[in-house]
Amino acid sequence: MIQITLPDGSIKLFEKNVTPIDVAKNISEGLARNVISASFNNSVVETSTPLTKDGSLTLYTWNNNEGKKAFWHSSAHILAEALEELYPNVKLWVGPAIENGFYYDVDLGDDTISEKDFKTIEDKMLEIARGKYDFKMRSVSKKEALSFYQNKNEYKVELIENLEDGTITFCDHSKFTDLCRGGHIPNTGIVKAVKILSVAGAYYKGDENNKQLTRVYGISFPKQKDLTEYLQLLEEAKKRDHRKLGKELELFTFSEKVGQGLPLWLPKGAALRDRLEDFLKKAQKKAGYEMVISPHIGQKELYVTSGHYAKYGEDSFQPIHTPKEGEEFLLKPMNCPHHCEIYNSSQWSYRDLPKRYAEFGTVYRYEQSGELHGLTRVRGFTQDDAHLFCTPEQLDEEFKNVIDLVLYVFGSLGFENFSTQVSVRDSENPDKYIGDVGNWKKAEQAIINAAEDKGLDYVIVEGEAAFYGPKLDFMVKDALGRQWQLGTIQVDYNLPERFNLTYKGSDNELHRPVMIHRAPFGSMERFIAILLEHTAGNFPIWLMPEQAIILSISEKYEKYAEKVLTLLENNEIRALVDNRNETIGKKIREAEMKKFPFMIIIGENEENEEKITVRRHGGEDLGMISIVEFSKIVNSEINKTLKKF
Amino acid sequence: MIQITLPDGSIKLFEKNVTPIDVAKNISEGLARNVISASFNNSVVETSTPLTKDGSLTLYTWNNNEGKKAFWHSSAHILAEALEELYPNVKLWVGPAIENGFYYDVDLGDDTISEKDFKTIEDKMLEIARGKYDFKMRSVSKKEALSFYQNKNEYKVELIENLEDGTITFCDHSKFTDLCRGGHIPNTGIVKAVKILSVAGAYYKGDENNKQLTRVYGISFPKQKDLTEYLQLLEEAKKRDHRKLGKELELFTFSEKVGQGLPLWLPKGAALRDRLEDFLKKAQKKAGYEMVISPHIGQKELYVTSGHYAKYGEDSFQPIHTPKEGEEFLLKPMNCPHHCEIYNSSQWSYRDLPKRYAEFGTVYRYEQSGELHGLTRVRGFTQDDAHLFCTPEQLDEEFKNVIDLVLYVFGSLGFENFSTQVSVRDSENPDKYIGDVGNWKKAEQAIINAAEDKGLDYVIVEGEAAFYGPKLDFMVKDALGRQWQLGTIQVDYNLPERFNLTYKGSDNELHRPVMIHRAPFGSMERFIAILLEHTAGNFPIWLMPEQAIILSISEKYEKYAEKVLTLLENNEIRALVDNRNETIGKKIREAEMKKFPFMIIIGENEENEEKITVRRHGGEDLGMISIVEFSKIVNSEINKTLKKF
Repeated sequence: MIQITLPDGSIKLFEKNVTPIDVAKNISEGLARNVISASFNNSVVETSTPLTKDGSLTLYTWNNNEGKKAFWHSSAHILAEALEELYPNVKLWVGPAIENGFYYDVDLGDDTISEKDFKTIEDKMLEIARGKYDFKMRSVSKKEALSFYQNKNEYKVELIENLEDGTITFCDHSKFTDLCRGGHIPNTGIVKAVKILSVAGAYYKGDENNKQLTRVYGISFPKQKDLTEYLQLLEEAKKRDHRKLGKELELFTFSEKVGQGLPLWLPKGAALRDRLEDFLKKAQKKAGYEMVISPHIGQKELYVTSGHYAKYGEDSFQPIHTPKEGEEFLLKPMNCPHHCEIYNSSQWSYRDLPKRYAEFGTVYRYEQSGELHGLTRVRGFTQDDAHLFCTPEQLDEEFKNVIDLVLYVFGSLGFENFSTQVSVRDSENPDKYIGDVGNWKKAEQAIINAAEDKGLDYVIVEGEAAFYGPKLDFMVKDALGRQWQLGTIQVDYNLPERFNLTYKGSDNELHRPVMIHRAPFGSMERFIAILLEHTAGNFPIWLMPEQAIILSISEKYEKYAEKVLTLLENNEIRALVDNRNETIGKKIREAEMKKFPFMIIIGENEENEEKITVRRHGGEDLGMISIVEFSKIVNSEINKTLKKF
Repeated sequence: MIQITLPDGSIKLFEKNVTPIDVAKNISEGLARNVISASFNNSVVETSTPLTKDGSLTLYTWNNNEGKKAFWHSSAHILAEALEELYPNVKLWVGPAIENGFYYDVDLGDDTISEKDFKTIEDKMLEIARGKYDFKMRSVSKKEALSFYQNKNEYKVELIENLEDGTITFCDHSKFTDLCRGGHIPNTGIVKAVKILSVAGAYYKGDENNKQLTRVYGISFPKQKDLTEYLQLLEEAKKRDHRKLGKELELFTFSEKVGQGLPLWLPKGAALRDRLEDFLKKAQKKAGYEMVISPHIGQKELYVTSGHYAKYGEDSFQPIHTPKEGEEFLLKPMNCPHHCEIYNSSQWSYRDLPKRYAEFGTVYRYEQSGELHGLTRVRGFTQDDAHLFCTPEQLDEEFKNVIDLVLYVFGSLGFENFSTQVSVRDSENPDKYIGDVGNWKKAEQAIINAAEDKGLDYVIVEGEAAFYGPKLDFMVKDALGRQWQLGTIQVDYNLPERFNLTYKGSDNELHRPVMIHRAPFGSMERFIAILLEHTAGNFPIWLMPEQAIILSISEKYEKYAEKVLTLLENNEIRALVDNRNETIGKKIREAEMKKFPFMIIIGENEENEEKITVRRHGGEDLGMISIVEFSKIVNSEINKTLKKF
């Protein structure tokens, strides 16, 4: 008999060679029907692997990431078999599961695959799936493995040559065999829906000097309905792609001459950023922050002191030399060293603390051009940065106040759905962290207390703390259910040490302040990208650069249009006039596309009655109303989103 | 007889060998008394030089820069004689006139000069001056010149060795002789007041590998009163030094670690900048500008296209390399290339123009560390930059509008005293300039028309235009009478060409827009420095971060102080409370130093009567008044400075 420990800590006795699926059946038939993957003592096993010793077993369903991984990895096998059947000359290289689906890199010889072939591949895959073939792992000797692929597939041969004899396994299903380390669902029949998503070129071993293979991307699901939903989501995500919306709404652009990953903010985008920054500035002012301004470069020495050079120096933009004097500067990758030097420009007393320095600081970090993506992955971005310098006694209170600010920001921008993670030390590796153990405990406890106090839905993750201090991260879910890491609040004992920051305590001695790094948006670029995709460009009305557009039925009403504009301005409603000689239908269609929250239509009736006809974005007709009534509607709308702080 | 042409164009006949002073006497005895220097056919001559051919003669008095130059150059001779008499081992090198005064670089051997010796030197100089010795030029052969200095002064010997025989002249006065090219006042007696200002080390030939000589700085005047006034000005300038005020008012700081010439803006400085930027932003918005945001770096190629790399590349911050991909970026020295790329992101029609892109863009330019000075000479600074793209037909109108904006800015900031310069082509060197001659003429005329139209006091200077277009520069005089170049408006035909900027005309063809560069402040850093020195920190009240400080007589009135603060806020007056347990005298002294325009003193009487006692910065007592009365005073003060736009 062997002892099997389950995730809830319970221990069950089974006969040796029991399989994970047997254990599942023992727990419940329902569970067994859904289990598609398992891990034993933290290693992936098949659900059919006989267990031969005591250990911890975790069973996975489609609802676990591990379950999905096995599902998609297994689907890659099915794809490979389909490709072998459809393209007799195909040579397989590797085919992993990825975040959403899977791919297989193959050498198609003289064949090619294009979109018109996708259906055929999908049909072939479903045909195989319906055969309900078991995935069966078997060990093979290196010699056997090599002879299987010899003269047929040089890619697999090279893979096998780098493996150690005795560790090599094949996976069979139906008539198909692949070199494989394992981690499959029980059989092909569980795959009910497949979609080939795209094909792309991929260099063998990722090296551009090698031959270019074909990468076939696919995704699969246990239910047709899941696929349908996924495709709808994909369609919606495409529509909301911030790169597409950014172009349509004329927010930002990129220039080949200026350089990749360096956004140029067009007037409407700059106005949007300004509005967002103003919103945060006001809240920060209330919360006792002070704005500072620091340069975008600093001497290399500054980042040697801060430790950033040792950490990022070689992988980032290289030092800037001066034509004389032999100086070396770096583009700043972070604002914290500058803020430490600002703190250090005076000798503070405990009575002066906390100091809260905020800056919309633009930083530069090198990313490979292949990694760049719209505004979410750039080479230059502006952090809504702040650094709080406080006494250890003030940490609790300050941390709570920062949480309030972050929650205010998320709430006002319509991110109601979020979770938080408290990242603490790895208790088994205390020497990975710098700073006094007592301070660490206090800081971790301060974060947990604050999270509790603010009623946050949080998880504590061991070992995820930065080496300089614990932190609290905010993950928001957008309208499409996608998760994004946004704001972060970090406690830091390291920089105060490195920059020898001090304050004079009530005992007249010098003490070390604690530092909090925080950025509710994270970066303006990334935040605006996420906000665009979350709202599809229909920003909260308080944020909209123009809240309404006045559409005149004809040019005759130009004067009345200007009058309405002035009245709206008096009511602090931002609006534009569209007086072009176009049909009202065309004007409305364009205003819809430009995402104006309200369209104000004016013609003869409106002018005679001194009223306006209002139509919401999306089509709802509010009828002919007075400016005062309209202003009330706008204000109530604003109050629904813009929270009190 | 020879013909002498005078600056007013009149031509007079004189006998050959007439001297400039004779010509002056011929015009009027009064003029002759004041003439101290002259130029003939654009070359400096002595007032006693016999004129031997026809030519143009200009006579200078102390009121001309050329007159001052001759005065101070001659004073350097007097200083040299004084030093020879006082320090028998002294060896002279060179002694030019400078912007304010003169210096002489000398090798003192084993002697030294310190402040306590200044009086002795001044007395000796005045003694020489009182001798009324004529300055007399004479030609010497190279051999004579060398033998005069041989074995006595190796510095002069080296100077002479580099001169061509036949071009060498000496100047004698009293018993003293110096190698000299000429340009003196008639005699030493004209110098009535002298002051030795400082001594400093100066490397021979400016090369730090050579011997260090002693540089003796001095200044001299034709009247004692002028010296007294100058010393007062110097004293006042010291008090107003923006580096000193910047520290006292906690506006900015520098950090050795961040690097020289890279200011860090402290909270109060950042707030001041923000307020100035907001002021300009509001005016710009009214004038139809749109804000944009561009990165602080760009590919080297961008600046090759713009021509900046060829012009500044080698002398500025060197390219930033990436760790992979072999890219090269530059810190942006100017914002214009970025704005051209923003313009280029759409195809505009003539109906869309003008486009007016504004950005508070931080640029970086290398300056040698020895050249850096506070905020006036830095390595990173923020331009209040804008680029206007218009059709040639719109240029006139746009240029006038920009002048209006600049005048609004200067007026609101108390720079009432300014002059302007229109810089046009050098008509004799047309190939120094790029672009169509017709466009140049139009642009120059547009600037002159605009200057006329706006009633500006302007001078036209030939040959001072940039190679890409003519410009209008604004020179303001500060409260100490010092002149600063501030705003500039430039017309540019070059960048539209280089960036291939186009718009579709009414003829449906592509045309080239004209570009206007403009920056009313010039740079935020330099402007704030000048504003600090101009106002001694007493900024116009609308700009003051805090317009009033509430000083409570004792802590008992804390509550009333808070109430007053709220009432002031309701009246849109920015104020602070000083509730410290200090004497009211100390509080007032500190508030004076911090430049609060108004001090509001509250105690028992004020609380009982619900009033406030107001004292202006500088001491004026406004008595006990109501908040409403105070608010009226503040508003009338604001309206006096902040102009309408």
